Amino acid sequence: MERVPVLKIGDILLVSIQIDMSDQTALALQEDLAERIVATGCHGVIIDITALDIVDSFVGRMLSTIASISRVLDAETVVVGMRPAVAITLVELGLSLNGIRTALNVERGMELIAASREADLTYDGEVEYPEPGQTATSP
Amino acid sequence: MERVPVLKIGDILLVSIQIDMSDQTALALQEDLAERIVATGCHGVIIDITALDIVDSFVGRMLSTIASISRVLDAETVVVGMRPAVAITLVELGLSLNGIRTALNVERGMELIAASREADLTYDGEVEYPEPGQTATSP
Repeated sequence: MERVPVLKIGDILLVSIQIDMSDQTALALQEDLAERIVATGCHGVIIDITALDIVDSFVGRMLSTIASISRVLDAETVVVGMRPAVAITLVELGLSLNGIRTALNVERGMELIAASREADLTYDGEVEYPEPGQTATSP
Repeated sequence: MERVPVLKIGDILLVSIQIDMSDQTALALQEDLAERIVATGCHGVIIDITALDIVDSFVGRMLSTIASISRVLDAETVVVGMRPAVAITLVELGLSLNGIRTALNVERGMELIAASREADLTYDGEVEYPEPGQTATSP
């Protein structure tokens, strides 16, 4: 099985997705990332999708899951390098990547994470926790 | 044709090779990298091969070519993330990646490039320019 490498650069983990993601590859990536966040104490995850021609609902869901996992491990996820055509198709498909932050390229993504980290650390009031998401309730 | 994305991080271009390189992909990567070095003025190229199970003579030659192209464009190339098994196989095959610098991971690679750049810039003696190449003279 192919694995997507997770690269550590300073306080950030960088993932460049270039291969077609299967269920297994996606699961392995989620596990690898979670383990690396815990092992390194990194506070940011940048996922580069420059190489992707298509972002379908599967990849969209994978990105959302990674962002959620990272969030509970106190790391922020930014998706970077989206092609214009991919953005257009995403919106046409009705996939708006809710809860995922995006930036134009890796550098902007790093700035975004640094700025948001800075804001968190210098905030001297009460910490605002996000509202817990509505969980699916069976009728 | 698949293309390997070239990511700019500060003064460095980062390439993570995850797909099987064909002649065309290798050529495209060389062109992309050369163009990006010129366009961005970056002084370092880091090639991550964490995802590669095998480095054969084709990939070895590609790495050498990229390093040579970068060198004439005033950028240094460091190959990072080589797996232990890959290193063993390389040596067993008699491929020693001549002229290519290696580092354990991306961060070490960045340090290596920064240190070597620093050494170049703080050199306070006479700057040694390479001998101008012999130009073709029409008789």
